[in-house]
Amino acid sequence: MNTIKFAVAGLGRIGKIHLDNLLQMEGVEVVAAMDPSEECRLYAKNNNIPFITSSYKDLISMGDFSVILICSPTNTHADYVEMGALAGKDVFCEKPLDLSLERVLEVLKVVHESGVQLMLGFNRRFDKEFKKVHELVKEGAVGEPHLVKITSRDPGAPPVSYIKQSGGLFLDMTIHDFDMARFVVGKEIDEVYAKGTVLTNPAIGEAGDIDTAVVTLTYMDGTMAVIDNSREAAYGYDQRIEVFGSKGMVQANNNFNDSHRLYTSKGIEGALP
Amino acid sequence: MNTIKFAVAGLGRIGKIHLDNLLQMEGVEVVAAMDPSEECRLYAKNNNIPFITSSYKDLISMGDFSVILICSPTNTHADYVEMGALAGKDVFCEKPLDLSLERVLEVLKVVHESGVQLMLGFNRRFDKEFKKVHELVKEGAVGEPHLVKITSRDPGAPPVSYIKQSGGLFLDMTIHDFDMARFVVGKEIDEVYAKGTVLTNPAIGEAGDIDTAVVTLTYMDGTMAVIDNSREAAYGYDQRIEVFGSKGMVQANNNFNDSHRLYTSKGIEGALP
Amino acid sequence: MNTIKFAVAGLGRIGKIHLDNLLQMEGVEVVAAMDPSEECRLYAKNNNIPFITSSYKDLISMGDFSVILICSPTNTHADYVEMGALAGKDVFCEKPLDLSLERVLEVLKVVHESGVQLMLGFNRRFDKEFKKVHELVKEGAVGEPHLVKITSRDPGAPPVSYIKQSGGLFLDMTIHDFDMARFVVGKEIDEVYAKGTVLTNPAIGEAGDIDTAVVTLTYMDGTMAVIDNSREAAYGYDQRIEVFGSKGMVQANNNFNDSHRLYTSKGIEGALP
Amino acid sequence: MNTIKFAVAGLGRIGKIHLDNLLQMEGVEVVAAMDPSEECRLYAKNNNIPFITSSYKDLISMGDFSVILICSPTNTHADYVEMGALAGKDVFCEKPLDLSLERVLEVLKVVHESGVQLMLGFNRRFDKEFKKVHELVKEGAVGEPHLVKITSRDPGAPPVSYIKQSGGLFLDMTIHDFDMARFVVGKEIDEVYAKGTVLTNPAIGEAGDIDTAVVTLTYMDGTMAVIDNSREAAYGYDQRIEVFGSKGMVQANNNFNDSHRLYTSKGIEGALP
Repeated sequence: MNTIKFAVAGLGRIGKIHLDNLLQMEGVEVVAAMDPSEECRLYAKNNNIPFITSSYKDLISMGDFSVILICSPTNTHADYVEMGALAGKDVFCEKPLDLSLERVLEVLKVVHESGVQLMLGFNRRFDKEFKKVHELVKEGAVGEPHLVKITSRDPGAPPVSYIKQSGGLFLDMTIHDFDMARFVVGKEIDEVYAKGTVLTNPAIGEAGDIDTAVVTLTYMDGTMAVIDNSREAAYGYDQRIEVFGSKGMVQANNNFNDSHRLYTSKGIEGALP
Repeated sequence: MNTIKFAVAGLGRIGKIHLDNLLQMEGVEVVAAMDPSEECRLYAKNNNIPFITSSYKDLISMGDFSVILICSPTNTHADYVEMGALAGKDVFCEKPLDLSLERVLEVLKVVHESGVQLMLGFNRRFDKEFKKVHELVKEGAVGEPHLVKITSRDPGAPPVSYIKQSGGLFLDMTIHDFDMARFVVGKEIDEVYAKGTVLTNPAIGEAGDIDTAVVTLTYMDGTMAVIDNSREAAYGYDQRIEVFGSKGMVQANNNFNDSHRLYTSKGIEGALP
Repeated sequence: MNTIKFAVAGLGRIGKIHLDNLLQMEGVEVVAAMDPSEECRLYAKNNNIPFITSSYKDLISMGDFSVILICSPTNTHADYVEMGALAGKDVFCEKPLDLSLERVLEVLKVVHESGVQLMLGFNRRFDKEFKKVHELVKEGAVGEPHLVKITSRDPGAPPVSYIKQSGGLFLDMTIHDFDMARFVVGKEIDEVYAKGTVLTNPAIGEAGDIDTAVVTLTYMDGTMAVIDNSREAAYGYDQRIEVFGSKGMVQANNNFNDSHRLYTSKGIEGALP
Repeated sequence: MNTIKFAVAGLGRIGKIHLDNLLQMEGVEVVAAMDPSEECRLYAKNNNIPFITSSYKDLISMGDFSVILICSPTNTHADYVEMGALAGKDVFCEKPLDLSLERVLEVLKVVHESGVQLMLGFNRRFDKEFKKVHELVKEGAVGEPHLVKITSRDPGAPPVSYIKQSGGLFLDMTIHDFDMARFVVGKEIDEVYAKGTVLTNPAIGEAGDIDTAVVTLTYMDGTMAVIDNSREAAYGYDQRIEVFGSKGMVQANNNFNDSHRLYTSKGIEGALP
């Protein structure tokens, strides 16, 4: 097996996770890293990355790699992806590509013309539960899909400061569900109806965002999907999917902290997701 | 305990069920029954109902009862309820009251002015599972409700002939879910978005109806609800509810034919709902 | 269908239940009832039983029935079954037939020689859950059975006065599990190891009984079964069975009061069995 | 934090796992490894272990470590533990310590006199599910324990060659359950009744072992436990525990490959444990 050489741009929380994972993989070598923060560059140094820089241009100029991972802030994604693609590198970029649809289309054009591969960080496609549902749907286990239901609730809202620059709930959170809706049945969306409200924290509303939402999607062929979101589920992280079709239904449920069941005179108790 | 005297109008499938139930209750006497069909009147006779007629007017004229159960076809409901109310009877009527909103409002006006009680046949309020969810929500177990989710799928579509006169999926099937959405959190609806499609049987579309639907409701206070419906679930009758709120979530799931679990090398199997 | 005529001997708690059930069945007529208590005979009278007596001999002499149900106290079972059999009646008798094995064998001899049918009240064979397991085992769903596991726990112990005359835990409670162990796999037992102890209430021990037990059974062919019992499960009535075999395992679990699940920050809660 | 120095004796399947884990832990250094096989010594070399030998005596003589892990074949355990203890090392040894109770007692005497710590490889104590049950029992969640139930079934029997030298089912498999029975309620056993049989493969019987077993344990205070074992569960690895007590019951169930549920007209299906 040939070794694939990687560069990593951005070593914040998610960048560090990707770096750690790459370092444990066979057939992979991380040859360069870039971050404006000294602490992050030190992290790269401690992990024996040969080339370390604070400049994305320098990283691209270094050149001796075939894939670049972009884990820098959202507002740099579009430019960095373009530059990577123009330099002939395959690109992995954390979501979202950009907050402007126009800019996204521009970048995609550059990527296509460069002939490189682009992958966005939609990790949920690789979650064991969602993957299993995707496979069963693909195998025809539920027949022709009629309705996709996705529940996605976070245990708590991010800081309002983050919300202000994230693009809001639909762009920082529902984005995973929009991707999953397309992925799980392999169909494209034709129509979207979205309704949101502020029910957990007025400060979220004041920041121009919502915390609770229901989205109805209609695919090109009339199949429907419905997504429900909340920024704050008191009981923890709640991620479920259900695909209902002509021959049946498949569900993926939450994983729980453990499988215990406690029976007492008051009822039955179990662990949280 | 005083005995309450009942009359039953309409002894089709549902009317017979109500009659049988009434005959087994303490403190209840069924003194009169009405149905245009001879077979149905014979059923009443075999159950020793004293006064039997084919005319609703005669039934009302007979008069010696305090409650009337209306189980006749939908297109008679409005008139029969009005006549019962004007005669000073408390009225139980199978849903829907009428297919025209205008007519419904007229009837309600008559009922209110007559000072009698009117109850519609929303049986799901009395289902053990839904009732438990209602109680827990009322007790505050999930805090302030943020989102209500109702899944309601039938094992198979009714005949197209029925669909043609029923008013369609929203009026003959979702009507229970509309009622449940209001009942379970005790709030009124302000806004409705409904989207439907034909995915199971083109004949349903030709009859002007849909077989699959997603409905998003917004309550007066911004709380949301989402309903999903299908005329045909391959695996059986599927009725679930979930209320998500500031302190948690409560779900009612389906009842299954039995609780067995079979583990083999192929996987785990259980009984259907 | 011919009507089958029944007589009922003993109208205590369980006798009344049998009588009520018989009165609701098609093709069945209860023509006679016997009980030494006036209150119980009145119950029969109110249910329009034609022949009512306080003497079992009189009941047998009356004669115009083909089946007798024996629901009288345990110490009368053997004699009553014998007398019924000798009079040519098919007999249903509540368990146990007698506390003495010798006497049981005597009675069975009489029954066989009389050519009548005898059925003992092992109701759990007709429980939906246990029945399903029995059927799946019979169909070969788990292959050749290797191990049967039965859990049987009551919500609370009966009064010590009852325990004193019941024959004790093995004869009044485990008796159902002994029957189920034979029934579920259709095999006979060769060897029994039973171990019991007093853990809930010393008064049970003073009455010469136990409240907690584990019984290991070995069938004629080496297959094994294990039963665990308790007189007092804080969380309610707990009845489960599991059959493990060469191709898999089938379990029947408890039925719960309802299927709700409440998720809060403290964990998940559900209804009791 | 001081670094703890380890030596590893035996680098077969389980020894390699322990070595890999140690190499990933903070505050741990593996300074020496021993194995008679060249391939295993090479494995140590590739992992940069400084001192590598084929002789246990040499390993002990090397001396510059405080803990020794013994992962060599069972028949060396007793001698190696003794030698390690006499050299003043804390010892972790894979189970069992020895197949002879007499020899085990001798070794324990040496260990106690040496004042070192000895830990046996009862990994199931650290399993998330069993640990949770242990904690809940300790906190009194089920009150005073009355009955412990352990189910332990392997997906398939080991080779008959292994069975011949392992000491048999009770010593190579039930040993974990014996340990768990003591651990989960923190009580010692007074009496054991064990019954086994050969139901899966006659070759196991010819090798003098059994493949299916039920064991009833009575603790010093009368509490009971029951263990059931099988060498071959068609549906996979089946490990469950249940502790029933005066205030309730706690269960740990299997983990499944995933949480999906597929509903079709044939029933419900899910993933295996």
